Amino acid sequence: MNDSVYLARAIALAKQGLYTTDPNPRVGCVVVKSGQIVGEGWHQQVGGPHAEINALAQAGNNAQGATCYVTLEPCCHHGRTAPCTGVLIQAGINRVVVAIKDPNPKVAGKGLAQLRAAGIEVTHGLLTEEAKALNLGFIQRFTLNRPWVRCKLAMSLDGATALASGESRWITSPAARHDVQKWRARSSGILTGIGTILHDNPSLNVRYHELKEQIPELLQRQPLCIILDQKLTLPEHAKILSLPRSVLVVCEDSSYPKAEILRNLGVEVINIPLLGQKLDLALLMTVLAQREMNELHVECGAKLAGSLLQAGLIDELILYIAPKLMGDNSLGLFHLLGINTMKDTIDVVIKEVRAIGNDWRFIVHFNKS
Amino acid sequence: MNDSVYLARAIALAKQGLYTTDPNPRVGCVVVKSGQIVGEGWHQQVGGPHAEINALAQAGNNAQGATCYVTLEPCCHHGRTAPCTGVLIQAGINRVVVAIKDPNPKVAGKGLAQLRAAGIEVTHGLLTEEAKALNLGFIQRFTLNRPWVRCKLAMSLDGATALASGESRWITSPAARHDVQKWRARSSGILTGIGTILHDNPSLNVRYHELKEQIPELLQRQPLCIILDQKLTLPEHAKILSLPRSVLVVCEDSSYPKAEILRNLGVEVINIPLLGQKLDLALLMTVLAQREMNELHVECGAKLAGSLLQAGLIDELILYIAPKLMGDNSLGLFHLLGINTMKDTIDVVIKEVRAIGNDWRFIVHFNKS
Repeated sequence: MNDSVYLARAIALAKQGLYTTDPNPRVGCVVVKSGQIVGEGWHQQVGGPHAEINALAQAGNNAQGATCYVTLEPCCHHGRTAPCTGVLIQAGINRVVVAIKDPNPKVAGKGLAQLRAAGIEVTHGLLTEEAKALNLGFIQRFTLNRPWVRCKLAMSLDGATALASGESRWITSPAARHDVQKWRARSSGILTGIGTILHDNPSLNVRYHELKEQIPELLQRQPLCIILDQKLTLPEHAKILSLPRSVLVVCEDSSYPKAEILRNLGVEVINIPLLGQKLDLALLMTVLAQREMNELHVECGAKLAGSLLQAGLIDELILYIAPKLMGDNSLGLFHLLGINTMKDTIDVVIKEVRAIGNDWRFIVHFNKS
Repeated sequence: MNDSVYLARAIALAKQGLYTTDPNPRVGCVVVKSGQIVGEGWHQQVGGPHAEINALAQAGNNAQGATCYVTLEPCCHHGRTAPCTGVLIQAGINRVVVAIKDPNPKVAGKGLAQLRAAGIEVTHGLLTEEAKALNLGFIQRFTLNRPWVRCKLAMSLDGATALASGESRWITSPAARHDVQKWRARSSGILTGIGTILHDNPSLNVRYHELKEQIPELLQRQPLCIILDQKLTLPEHAKILSLPRSVLVVCEDSSYPKAEILRNLGVEVINIPLLGQKLDLALLMTVLAQREMNELHVECGAKLAGSLLQAGLIDELILYIAPKLMGDNSLGLFHLLGINTMKDTIDVVIKEVRAIGNDWRFIVHFNKS
């Protein structure tokens, strides 16, 4: 009972790192002695101290004989910092309560084993759903070798994402567009297609001055922008290249002359193999996982969205529905192939529905079979 | 304060007549003496006693000196029954509290005036929104000379109401389709187009055995079915003609030979003038209002839905959204003309969003300028 309460507090602390820990996981920690919280901490930034270290620092000598609640298994390997297991043992912690194991194979239960070997009582498996939700991307990167892919789309109440002309500014209200900033800010990367760049010329950056969550300037990251541009037609004057951020262009052949032009603008250009006529999207995800991308935020048109969906590469859909009608001569959300009967349609799971200003936001997950 | 409480009870009573009073309004009544409810009643069925009469009958001699709460102004004219004002005066009611005036020009304030003339204290204008919501159709029939038009549509999460082939069975779950039965049951008429008949061959009836609200068999109405069939191509074997109910076919020329064939099957066939190349839908609504239609329930395809919408004839949209994706090579909800820029799109007001089984139901109203 009390274990869940303290662990819930640790989860709340972990959320403070929602926008800043990338590519590390969001982790929170509470140290409790004689029913009193004597130390709290969370991981803030890669290279900085882990949650346990921050909480132990606050606890000081009170850590001796205390219980430590932590949302993710303490690390036992020398990464960018020293292993937390050693610090917990040294501090004299009596008992450790962990929500979930670290999916990183370098840890993956070995941290818990080390603690047990040192005579510490270890409990794990509480609030696992809540703890997983904090780090869906971090977990998926290690378990499936690809990021958690979150696709953001907006449509009218009758399912149009743009007029026939392609015009779509703005379907949703400022409140919904503000909400999008938060999803961008928590992501490791933002993916789009060359079609969206050519048609809308978007910035796709995080506008921190619009975010209600005040994030210290030093911790403000701009997620890597990834542009799928098979034939390398990205214009050099695209707005996305004019902003202070890293851009990765993925094409079919990085020896095209345009690649050199883009590299001179500071853009990274890589090629990945084709699957049929198109870039191999599953392979792309593996490449991005190798680059430590946890959550990949996607904003794109119906073709790329449909291709990702039918490749089984979308995990989550954030769909904003605006209170307007645009008619059936409009563009849809997903271009899907082979949907000929009702049996071919794709079932989804609606996880959450809520009002965002005058719009409604659906959070949708995809059933994996 | 107390007035609102008793009037709210009268509104709750009125709702008992939701499915049965048509074409009369839903009305509830509470008689209160010395802080005690001494009589309650509601109007059940056309030709039967009004709410006030039922409540006074229960109150008996306690009506003397009591206050009468009623959701709609008491009638003062000889309709199918004697005027309620006279009965209230005779019963010795001291005070009458009314939510809203009767929109029927035969009453429209005259009922309140008669009560005042008889020395009864009259209060009106409480809980007006709630009282109007009970009788949106009845009010609109008298104020705008057309029914309240409620269009029911269902779509996938990506806005498809059918596959390219027209297949649409079933997008929504049984729970949503059950919910539709309630909207049908409360309506005066159910409108569709010949396209829907030819493509889906629906029943469009109320399946009372599926309704959770137990409605006594004697009170089970089948709303008039209205088919827009400009060229009179309705097949004689259409399922809709095989059921025990009244059918009205609206065409451009009721002297077509097919009209006689349909009449011999018990179908009423009328013609209405054209507006351009199409049946004049606004005129149709006037015709239906003259037939005492309060709420018109519409289930149809994108063309008729779009025409009604752009003629300003849809008041309410009941939209079921199912947790599936069908792709952009699908049929949309509304075929709309002249939507060329975002300024042409049609703003709506989302009044309610709720889960119905695994689907989500949006209730949408249209802003009248």
